[in-house]
Amino acid sequence: MKSSLHHPTNESVTATHTVGTEAPALHSDTRRIVVHTEPAYTVHIEHGLLATVGHHMRALAVTGHPVIITDTHVGPLYADSLVSSLQAADYEPLVYTLPAGEESKSPEQLLHILNFLADHCITRRDVLIALGGGVVGDITGFAAATYMRGIAYVQIPTSLLAMVDSSVGGKTAVNLPAGKNLWGAFKQPRAVFCDPDVLHTLPREEFIGGCGEVVKYTFLDNPALLGLLTKEPLTPQSSHLTDVIAQCVAAKARIVAADETEQGQRQLLNLGHTLAHGLEKYSHYTMPHGYAVAIGIALMAHLGFTHYGLPAEEYRQLIELLRAHHLPVTTEVPLDYLLEAARHDKKSHGLDVTIIVPTSHGHSERITVPHATLAEQLTASLSNV
Amino acid sequence: MKSSLHHPTNESVTATHTVGTEAPALHSDTRRIVVHTEPAYTVHIEHGLLATVGHHMRALAVTGHPVIITDTHVGPLYADSLVSSLQAADYEPLVYTLPAGEESKSPEQLLHILNFLADHCITRRDVLIALGGGVVGDITGFAAATYMRGIAYVQIPTSLLAMVDSSVGGKTAVNLPAGKNLWGAFKQPRAVFCDPDVLHTLPREEFIGGCGEVVKYTFLDNPALLGLLTKEPLTPQSSHLTDVIAQCVAAKARIVAADETEQGQRQLLNLGHTLAHGLEKYSHYTMPHGYAVAIGIALMAHLGFTHYGLPAEEYRQLIELLRAHHLPVTTEVPLDYLLEAARHDKKSHGLDVTIIVPTSHGHSERITVPHATLAEQLTASLSNV
Ligand SMILES: NC(=O)c1ccc[n+]([C@@H]2O[C@H](COP(=O)([O-])OP(=O)(O)OC[C@H]3O[C@@H](n4cnc5c(N)ncnc54)[C@H](O)[C@@H]3O)[C@@H](O)[C@H]2O)c1
Ligand SMILES: NC(=O)c1ccc[n+]([C@@H]2O[C@H](COP(=O)([O-])OP(=O)(O)OC[C@H]3O[C@@H](n4cnc5c(N)ncnc54)[C@H](O)[C@@H]3O)[C@@H](O)[C@H]2O)c1
Ligand SMILES: [Zn+2]
Ligand SMILES: [Zn+2]
Repeated sequence: MKSSLHHPTNESVTATHTVGTEAPALHSDTRRIVVHTEPAYTVHIEHGLLATVGHHMRALAVTGHPVIITDTHVGPLYADSLVSSLQAADYEPLVYTLPAGEESKSPEQLLHILNFLADHCITRRDVLIALGGGVVGDITGFAAATYMRGIAYVQIPTSLLAMVDSSVGGKTAVNLPAGKNLWGAFKQPRAVFCDPDVLHTLPREEFIGGCGEVVKYTFLDNPALLGLLTKEPLTPQSSHLTDVIAQCVAAKARIVAADETEQGQRQLLNLGHTLAHGLEKYSHYTMPHGYAVAIGIALMAHLGFTHYGLPAEEYRQLIELLRAHHLPVTTEVPLDYLLEAARHDKKSHGLDVTIIVPTSHGHSERITVPHATLAEQLTASLSNV
Repeated sequence: MKSSLHHPTNESVTATHTVGTEAPALHSDTRRIVVHTEPAYTVHIEHGLLATVGHHMRALAVTGHPVIITDTHVGPLYADSLVSSLQAADYEPLVYTLPAGEESKSPEQLLHILNFLADHCITRRDVLIALGGGVVGDITGFAAATYMRGIAYVQIPTSLLAMVDSSVGGKTAVNLPAGKNLWGAFKQPRAVFCDPDVLHTLPREEFIGGCGEVVKYTFLDNPALLGLLTKEPLTPQSSHLTDVIAQCVAAKARIVAADETEQGQRQLLNLGHTLAHGLEKYSHYTMPHGYAVAIGIALMAHLGFTHYGLPAEEYRQLIELLRAHHLPVTTEVPLDYLLEAARHDKKSHGLDVTIIVPTSHGHSERITVPHATLAEQLTASLSNV
C-alpha cells in the first residue's frame, strides 16, 4: 500500500467511507463520503475529478441541461474543462459567471442568476452546478433551492474552505445589507465533487485561511486528522491532501447528520467562531475568515488552558499547529470589542452564550455561560498570557 | 340545527374536521380543518375571527414578535383590529404595508420586506403574519421560507381566492420578469385564520373571481359543495359562506395532502387552468384570474360533453352554476392562441399535455393527450356549440 503514495498508478483505489463507521483508509486515490442528510448524497474527492464529472453525473442519473455558475477567477481557469467533461457525457451546459468576491453574495447577483435561468427556459428538470468557492456555492445553492420552488444542484468546490466546510451541510444564503447570510435556505446538493488539483491555483492566503477551518476539526475529536497535520502541515502539494479533505468532510458530515437543525452538536463547528466575528468586523472584513477563526481558536484554547483543564502541553501543540500553517494566533483588537460583537451575533441567545472550548487532547466542549462570565474569564485568561 | 342558520347565537358550535374523514357538519359557526402536510396545521374559519387571532396564536404557543405584512387596500381596513387583537394577547406587532396589486409580487418588494425584517432585528424566534389576498400571502410565505433560512408564518387570507385556494398548500412565490411564480419555495404556515366577515369589503369583481375557483371544486368530487352552490349561489351575505369556504379548504387540503409533490392528483386543481393562462395573457392580464378559470372550465366541460361522456344535463348544470355566479362562460379569443399559450405553460411536458375534463356529475378526470389531439378535439368540440 505504501508504494501507491510515492508511485500513484492509474488504477484508483476506491475507499467508500460511510459516515459513522471508521475513518477512511489513507493514501488511496479516491474518497467517497456519504452525507446522511435527508436526502443523502455523496462527496467525491479525487485528483483530476473535474475531467470526469460529466461521467459521474450520468452515473447519478442527473438529466436535463446543466447550468454552470462560476466566478471571474475560477471560470477562466476551470469552466472549459468542466464544459468538455459534461459534453463528453452528452450534456449541453450553459455557463454563467459572477464577479469574484464576497460582494457577489448579494440579492442583486442572485436575481441576475434567476433571470438568466428563466430567460434560458431552464426548468425543474435541469440542474445547476456551482463551480467555485463558498461564495459561488452559497448563492448557487440558494438559487437552486428557490428557482421554480427548487431544482437540483451539484457542488464543485474549488477553494479549500469550500471543500472542507461550505459545500457540506446544505446551508445556502446570500448577504443582506444588515448582515451576512441573513437570507437563504437549507438545500442539499445531489452530489459534491472535490478535485484537489484545483487548489494549486488558489491564492496562498485563501489556502491558509482554509487551513484555519481544517485545524478546527482536529480539536473536534478527529484523532486521525490531528495525527496527519501534526506530522506534516498541509500545503497544496501535500501527499495527504486528499486524506485531509476527506477527514474534514467526514467530520463535518458526521456532525451535520447528527444535528440537521443546528440545535446541539452542530454548535461544535463554531470552535473559533465566537470571537472571529468581531475580528473580521474590526478589520472591516479585510482579515480572511480563516485567519480570524485561527485567532479565535487560539483564544479559546487559552481559556481552556486557564479555566477548563486543557493541559499546557496540548495548548502548546494546538498553537504550534496553527503557527505551522502560517496562521495568526494573537490579536491587538481590544477584548471588549470582540465580546460586544459576540453579544450581537445571531447565534447568541439573550444573556447567555455557548462557547466551544478545547479541553483535552483533540477534544472540545460546548459550554454555556453568561456573557459577563465569558468576559471575566477571558480577561483573566489573557492577563495571564 | 336548522335554527342556528337563521338565528346565529353567540355560543359557537365547533366542528373539528380532519381531512379524509366525512365533510364538516353544516351551519355551525366555526370550522377547523387540519391540513395533513409535513408539518400539519389547522385552518380556522369563523365570523369575527380577526378579533381573536392573538388569543389563538397564544394557544398555538406562537412566541416572539409578530410582523404583519399587508397591502394598501387591506391594511387601512383591518390592520388596526389585528394589531389590537395581538396586543390584547401581549404581542408587540410591527406592520409592513405593500402597494396593493399583482405587481407587488416582485423580487424588489420581497427584498424590501427582508430588509425591513433585518433592520428591525427580527429573528428566527419571531413570526410573520400575512394579512391580505394571494399576493400578500405568496410573498409573505416566501419571505418566511427564506429569512434566516426560515421563520414561522401565519396566514390571514382576506380575499375569497386566498381563503379557498392560495392560503392552503404551502406554495409561495414571487414573479420574475419572464413569468409568474417562477421564484419561490414550499413552506407550510403555522396556522390559517379565515374571517368571512372581511369579504364584505372585497371588490365585487374579486369576489366573483374567487367564485371561479369555488365552482372548480364542485367538479372535483365534492357533492356537498355542489349541493350547497346549486341551491343558492354564493355572495358575501350567504348564510352558507363559512360552509362553502370550509368545503373548498377541505377539498384542497385533501388533494394537497395526498400529493405534496404535485405529481399526480394535485393536477386536478388545474381544472379550468390549462386554457385560462392564454385568456389572461391575451387580455394583458386585465381579465381577473377567476373569470379566465371559469371560461376554461366551460371549455373543458364542453370537451367533456363532446368527447369524454359528460351527460348533456350535467354540462348544462355546470354552465348554469358559472352563470349564476356572474362568471363568463365563452370567449372571443382564438383557440389557436389559447392552445399556443398552453403549450408554453411550465406544466406542459414536451409533446403531451395533461388536461382536467369534467366527465360525470361533479367529477373530473386527468387525461394526458398530445397537444395536437387536444387541438383537434377542442376545434371539433367548439364547432359544435
Ligand atoms: N454554506 C456554508 O455552510 C458555509 C460555511 C462556511 C463559509 N461559507 C461561506 O463561504 C464563503 C467563503 O468561501 P471562500 O473562502 O471559498 O470564498 P470565495 O468563494 O470568495 O473564494 C475565495 C477566492 O478564491 C478564488 N478561488 C476559489 N477557488 C479558486 C481556485 N481553485 N483557483 C483560483 N482562485 C480560486 C475565488 O474566486 C475568490 O476570489 C463566505 O461567503 C462564507 O459565508 C458558507
Ligand atoms: N400559493 C398558491 O397556491 C396560489 C394559488 C392561487 C393563486 N395564487 C396567487 O394569488 C394571487 C391572487 O390572489 P388574490 O386574488 O387574492 O389577489 P390580491 O392579493 O391582489 O387581492 C385582490 C385585490 O383585493 C384586495 N383585497 C383583498 N382582500 C380584501 C378585502 N377583504 N377587502 C378589500 N380589498 C381586499 C387586494 O388589496 C387586491 O387589490 C396571485 O398572485 C396568484 O398567483 C397563489
Ligand atoms: Zn468558518
Ligand atoms: Zn387559480
